[in-house]
Amino acid sequence: MKLRSLILLAALSLAAVPSGAATVYSSSKTPLSDGWKFVRQDLGGVWEILRESSKGKPTEYPLWTDVTLPHCYNAEDSVDPDLNYYQGAGWYTRTLEVTNPFKGGRTLLEFEGAGQVTSVWIDSKLVGSHTGGYDGWYLDITDEIAGKKSVTLSVRCDNTRNFEIIPSQISDFTIAGGIYRPLNLVFMPSSYVSAFVIKPVLEGKNGYVDVEYTSTGATGGKISVDVLSPDGKVIASSDAAGRVAAIKKPLLWSDKTPVLYTCRVKWTDEGGNAQVFEEKFGFRTEEFREHGPFFLNGERVLLKGTHIHEDFAGVGAALPDAVIRRQMQQMKDMGVNFVRLGHYQQSEMVLNLCDSLGIMVWEEIPWCRGGLGGDAYKEQARRMLRNMISQHRNHPSVIMWGMGNETDWPGDFEVFDADAIHDFMGELTQLSHSIDPSRPTCTRRNNKNFDVVDVYSPSIWDGWYSGKFFDYPKKDLAAIEQYPRFFHAEWGGDSHPHRHTEGKEFGNLERNDANGDWSETYIIHLFDWNLHKQAHMDNLTGSAFWTFRDFATPIRHDNPIPYMNQKGVLEHDGTPKESYYVFQSYWTEKPMAHIYGHTWPVRWGSPSDSHEVLVYSNCDRVELFLNGKSLGTRTRNVDDYPAAGFHWDVVFDPGQNSLKAVATKGKTVIEDEISQYYETRKWGSPAQLKFDVEPLGGDNYRVNILLVDASGVPCLDAANFVRFAFAGDGRLLDNMGTSHGSRRIQLANGRACIDVECKSSGAVSAYLEKERIGGLVDIGR
Amino acid sequence: MKLRSLILLAALSLAAVPSGAATVYSSSKTPLSDGWKFVRQDLGGVWEILRESSKGKPTEYPLWTDVTLPHCYNAEDSVDPDLNYYQGAGWYTRTLEVTNPFKGGRTLLEFEGAGQVTSVWIDSKLVGSHTGGYDGWYLDITDEIAGKKSVTLSVRCDNTRNFEIIPSQISDFTIAGGIYRPLNLVFMPSSYVSAFVIKPVLEGKNGYVDVEYTSTGATGGKISVDVLSPDGKVIASSDAAGRVAAIKKPLLWSDKTPVLYTCRVKWTDEGGNAQVFEEKFGFRTEEFREHGPFFLNGERVLLKGTHIHEDFAGVGAALPDAVIRRQMQQMKDMGVNFVRLGHYQQSEMVLNLCDSLGIMVWEEIPWCRGGLGGDAYKEQARRMLRNMISQHRNHPSVIMWGMGNETDWPGDFEVFDADAIHDFMGELTQLSHSIDPSRPTCTRRNNKNFDVVDVYSPSIWDGWYSGKFFDYPKKDLAAIEQYPRFFHAEWGGDSHPHRHTEGKEFGNLERNDANGDWSETYIIHLFDWNLHKQAHMDNLTGSAFWTFRDFATPIRHDNPIPYMNQKGVLEHDGTPKESYYVFQSYWTEKPMAHIYGHTWPVRWGSPSDSHEVLVYSNCDRVELFLNGKSLGTRTRNVDDYPAAGFHWDVVFDPGQNSLKAVATKGKTVIEDEISQYYETRKWGSPAQLKFDVEPLGGDNYRVNILLVDASGVPCLDAANFVRFAFAGDGRLLDNMGTSHGSRRIQLANGRACIDVECKSSGAVSAYLEKERIGGLVDIGR
Repeated sequence: MKLRSLILLAALSLAAVPSGAATVYSSSKTPLSDGWKFVRQDLGGVWEILRESSKGKPTEYPLWTDVTLPHCYNAEDSVDPDLNYYQGAGWYTRTLEVTNPFKGGRTLLEFEGAGQVTSVWIDSKLVGSHTGGYDGWYLDITDEIAGKKSVTLSVRCDNTRNFEIIPSQISDFTIAGGIYRPLNLVFMPSSYVSAFVIKPVLEGKNGYVDVEYTSTGATGGKISVDVLSPDGKVIASSDAAGRVAAIKKPLLWSDKTPVLYTCRVKWTDEGGNAQVFEEKFGFRTEEFREHGPFFLNGERVLLKGTHIHEDFAGVGAALPDAVIRRQMQQMKDMGVNFVRLGHYQQSEMVLNLCDSLGIMVWEEIPWCRGGLGGDAYKEQARRMLRNMISQHRNHPSVIMWGMGNETDWPGDFEVFDADAIHDFMGELTQLSHSIDPSRPTCTRRNNKNFDVVDVYSPSIWDGWYSGKFFDYPKKDLAAIEQYPRFFHAEWGGDSHPHRHTEGKEFGNLERNDANGDWSETYIIHLFDWNLHKQAHMDNLTGSAFWTFRDFATPIRHDNPIPYMNQKGVLEHDGTPKESYYVFQSYWTEKPMAHIYGHTWPVRWGSPSDSHEVLVYSNCDRVELFLNGKSLGTRTRNVDDYPAAGFHWDVVFDPGQNSLKAVATKGKTVIEDEISQYYETRKWGSPAQLKFDVEPLGGDNYRVNILLVDASGVPCLDAANFVRFAFAGDGRLLDNMGTSHGSRRIQLANGRACIDVECKSSGAVSAYLEKERIGGLVDIGR
Repeated sequence: MKLRSLILLAALSLAAVPSGAATVYSSSKTPLSDGWKFVRQDLGGVWEILRESSKGKPTEYPLWTDVTLPHCYNAEDSVDPDLNYYQGAGWYTRTLEVTNPFKGGRTLLEFEGAGQVTSVWIDSKLVGSHTGGYDGWYLDITDEIAGKKSVTLSVRCDNTRNFEIIPSQISDFTIAGGIYRPLNLVFMPSSYVSAFVIKPVLEGKNGYVDVEYTSTGATGGKISVDVLSPDGKVIASSDAAGRVAAIKKPLLWSDKTPVLYTCRVKWTDEGGNAQVFEEKFGFRTEEFREHGPFFLNGERVLLKGTHIHEDFAGVGAALPDAVIRRQMQQMKDMGVNFVRLGHYQQSEMVLNLCDSLGIMVWEEIPWCRGGLGGDAYKEQARRMLRNMISQHRNHPSVIMWGMGNETDWPGDFEVFDADAIHDFMGELTQLSHSIDPSRPTCTRRNNKNFDVVDVYSPSIWDGWYSGKFFDYPKKDLAAIEQYPRFFHAEWGGDSHPHRHTEGKEFGNLERNDANGDWSETYIIHLFDWNLHKQAHMDNLTGSAFWTFRDFATPIRHDNPIPYMNQKGVLEHDGTPKESYYVFQSYWTEKPMAHIYGHTWPVRWGSPSDSHEVLVYSNCDRVELFLNGKSLGTRTRNVDDYPAAGFHWDVVFDPGQNSLKAVATKGKTVIEDEISQYYETRKWGSPAQLKFDVEPLGGDNYRVNILLVDASGVPCLDAANFVRFAFAGDGRLLDNMGTSHGSRRIQLANGRACIDVECKSSGAVSAYLEKERIGGLVDIGR
């Protein structure tokens, strides 16, 4: 096969080359992680990979890079302050040696997710293609590898801007390229189960397990199913689908008790070869009561929710397993019992962790912004909905399927037809119900469409994009009345890590994003206000603040950390901001106490001013000490905003102060302590930068800068953009989207920092972007 | 019109949307230089440009850059040591206000050249497309702008790798993207002359001027032609095409007397609106005699040739007029009378300068390497041949049309069919002859094809890619016998600026590119040897060394200056290397003398060693002085290699020495003088870098480094790669592909340098790439 041109190639990449869409059920997946070469550009065709070449020949070019999968080719540039992130093709290739252990068996390639249009070649043959960056899919390559010991596997990913592919490029997140989830080699018998649906049924106090399956490949074969109890004992077996188990008083899955049963499935083909796999499931009921709260297993549960993107410092969309595990545990530790996976189907591993940790899920297709495209666009939306449901429906954590986000946002087409959008979402809802009648559908932000989904969230961002946060509760209460089933998805605001503000009253400020505070101080007050009000909203199903972790976005280059959406309670690398503890204080039981201000080394004011000190704690009582002297004990009272009553007016001593909180919950006593300097001098115009180098171990250093006036007084309200650069034997550890990994960043209270790797000697420079204020510091000289 | 996908867009961009191909004959061209916005990536479609947007909205992205035309979007990255250069789409847009002064007139957009596939929109309408990066073309946009005061003009260029587009990506030069030649707005009457052919005919001593033309647009209209003498006087007039002038004893155009006549043409449409333009032409005859030399106007002329790419430091393919003027003048000053424009049709301005300076031209289509593609590929080759001839045939400087280069080089297709390539070149030759019977066809390097072109150059690179340069003359003499009409295109070798070698005998070295000397010393000996041998090759038509100026190439990342083909006698920014003067000494008459070694500050050896000192001069006699003392006078003798007899064995004093050459030609005396240090110490292993900062004026500095051993002795044979970096208030002035503008570069005799812009303070680091040897130097601290 000779591919003569990009046109042909691009056309093929969108053509309907068949690809399987279901999850691959197998216990013998081999991740194809190693041995890959990658180039971030388009090729003339796969022949560039296959032709003879060697070092020094023109065919050596373009130069390839060794990579391991998963791999995202926007890991760095999506947060590069000086670039539009790359949107185009990237090619991966490796050799593949295949020996299928099954006689007559099938060999599959399973892509758990790759962005955004992906085409696959075995040697020179295009074997399949898939459009959609977030659903899993697989290819049967049995015929293409037949009789070959070794083949060349080549994969072309493409995230070129394209109006006809969802999500829209005007979405507020990076639409990344690459094989950013695992790519697995799977061996199957000659026939195999390709779809497996578990329907746990509760009737009275008894549970029943109904299963359905589809097989693929050769004719013949038989199934057997064992059902295992949460402690791993076989409690029922069946040699057929249908009702495979009846369980008296099954343990119910809930956020507090995430109990999981297991189906162990064995499929045997006619030659006696077996496919074996396990699917977990849970018994639970859910109800979004009309104008009322949410019930899980018949009990009212407030959905305490957040959102998360698959995007992390240094790796982009290619999250390592350890990062996923840590993020879900951090959510759980903060008290989350609900997450909206925004704005697309996420990794299987995320859902598994939601199952086992007890985090309920709103998962949605990436029909996000821009309008409504043509036939291919709509078919992609339908396909991704079918795939999401078929791949994740067995997860008990999923409680609703999302039909899209912000579909009232025009831009990608000359015609914006709100009726057509309304009708298409109606069609998607029907499709969802027809596949999975057990779960409601939902969407956020398209007020015209509230009537075609079961659960609806309008846009309520009081205190950030509009209004003032004191008004937020009445908006929520009105929405409970207005919509049959209201859930509040997305609220919050941006906060620049380590930026704090002294002495402001925030709640009545209009539109904080416009007035530009972006402090942690503002955001903890906003969160605190809303959380203490939610405690009394008996008919609220729940809410999900936006968002758990800062993430890269291509449409916010002038944010304090460029191209970062900074609405997270974690930084891009998972470091908690102060606001993390505000939620923890409202949502968790395990005793905790956190004095607000761990990242606020210098407070300021006149010598006799009093200053608000807050302690976020879920304990019954907190006593605060200033420089060893008690300032009194407060008792927790959720109605006593802020900090549920744990607030003190404190007169600091000029200079260094210590604050200690001693919190008591039942018999448990815990402490938190911070040190803060109290600056009483007024500062003048910025005049110079002071540098400080902090060893981080190994060859790594952190360079801290502080902007001071001509007298050396820190400019504690300075928010200038600063740029860092490095010369020497090493490099900046930048393009991380964090407070310590960004070469362009706004000062936070006159400070900023950058991490560097320096093997022998080097110099780091920092300059304010608009003024000629800055300088250099030596490292290792 | 709604463009829904890249596929459609890409397909359209190659479709046969009509575009005019001839030169636009008009005296009222307005270059559309200003007001452009540019983005180097693909868009979802032109709608991204047209839709409503404003600062802060998602539709603001991707961020656009202000640019002026001409503009090449690989100006920097084609020589970036750390990247594959960008190969993909780039978009340009601006508003266009159009008021055609002619009633019923036509409005044209003329692209003088854009790479490589270009599509043009007026508002949302795709109005035309062109494939081919080097020929001119135009679009009639009259109908699209009718009734509009202002339109949005958008242009998408695309240099994505594509097997089906010539030249091949395995060619040894950058295949750049962008509108890198002028884009003009042209107003024409309702009908206009769209092709104008001047055929100067010599019969005996008399000259006749025959003209042909084609008109386009409305019916009707009439032509008048004035013929002007070289001094601008009207010498004939005609109201019709055909024979418009008979001139007794016309002055002949030659390399020594580049005399140009002019046709002044006036075309008047039926409404009385006039198109006025001038075309220059010349009277000359040419003959490539079989196995014999070349005759111009009946006299043997040795073609003293070079090559040049449209590629320059900092601007890539978008050469400013001043650069083109300077390069052609530098050629002329070096004695060139022939240039092969490699490997594609070049700018009209280049041809105009060849006409006026007397530089004969081999111009060729970019069928270069890779093999032979399909129908679209072949049609592009035919089209570019037709366009090249129709656009440049009136230039007297053009003496042959090139059918392609290195068409024996396989790689882009699974099948390499030498017979098909042979036949296709035969077809191209016939096409060329059918359009322009007055000029021979030619090609270089495809020995199977020598019989389908009129003039042939095999590949003879003795002393570089094969063999040794002492053997070069016999290869040339054999080729004169072997081929009916032989011309030697391409010979020479790379030289790293400022690298010099002491005491080597080069002529019998095998394959210098493999043994890695890359010194200026080697290359001046190679050039010198060949030039002195050519003086006696009476049947040689001529030769063209490769190449006049260093140029970027994507296939040589490990060259001493990465991604630079360093075979030029000029650096990438036009700075002459020593070899420039070798040619000048052989090829010019105006008295000159140049001591070899202006860029060689330190020579080395034992105290009593004698060292070769060369003076390149076209003078009769040269006397050399060492430290004021005469070392004798030599008389020019072209057979006395090297330096035509101007060579001395010199014993330097340890330490600083001065060399002065006094050259005499008739009554003219000229001098040249250099200073060289003589190092008698032996050096050990490299131990440290010494830094020196040299102010260049304004905010610019040059940082020089020198590698020395533990005792401080310079390591004068060191060729390590060094990397420069800058931290501070400024930037490296890098990605220039020069000896002073490359952040990764090999040392030359232990030295390297980098230019920086530093507004207040900064530090420059330099580190050897493999050893931990290096350091930093402060600037402005």
